Amino acid sequence: MNPFVHAVHFWLQPDVSDERRAALVEALKGLGESPNVASCRVGVPAGTDRPVVDNSYDIQLVCGFNSVEDHDRYQSADDTLHTQFIENFKDTWAKVVIYDSLEA
Amino acid sequence: MNPFVHAVHFWLQPDVSDERRAALVEALKGLGESPNVASCRVGVPAGTDRPVVDNSYDIQLVCGFNSVEDHDRYQSADDTLHTQFIENFKDTWAKVVIYDSLEA
Repeated sequence: MNPFVHAVHFWLQPDVSDERRAALVEALKGLGESPNVASCRVGVPAGTDRPVVDNSYDIQLVCGFNSVEDHDRYQSADDTLHTQFIENFKDTWAKVVIYDSLEA
Repeated sequence: MNPFVHAVHFWLQPDVSDERRAALVEALKGLGESPNVASCRVGVPAGTDRPVVDNSYDIQLVCGFNSVEDHDRYQSADDTLHTQFIENFKDTWAKVVIYDSLEA
């Protein structure tokens, strides 16, 4: 994987329709088209039944970046694909928890 | 990335020495040698300063599996590399939070 990993977990608002949720998943997959993103993977809870596993989130996004600079550009106003995504879908999530990491 | 993603976050015991921590990181990287694991990436907090980012964990492990069956075998007694890793290092962590996901 990439030097910088950005693992995002979304808990959605209870009133999000199935159609809106599907649109969100497609838009998240589309973030892989950003010139700043090296890899992009969208997932849903696997339902593994162990006490240490959190299955309460709705959607997981794992983005890889080739550098901190690429990540920072992705988070800036320069990345219109990302800023437009947030603008279009920020009403759908109730909570977001992100784990950013550098390769150990 | 792989059909099944296993994202593990470790919060270590406060008394873990730097040497023991380094050994844990190396052992985590070594989990990539399991025949059940398709990809393995070990990270530490990137320190990105945003309210939605959790920088409180110590080590992140992101494993990819090619199937649920491969993941389940990795979690079973059959995967001696994994079971031995847990036996050797379970004293080092205070808390573990795992997000398992299937590709959306």
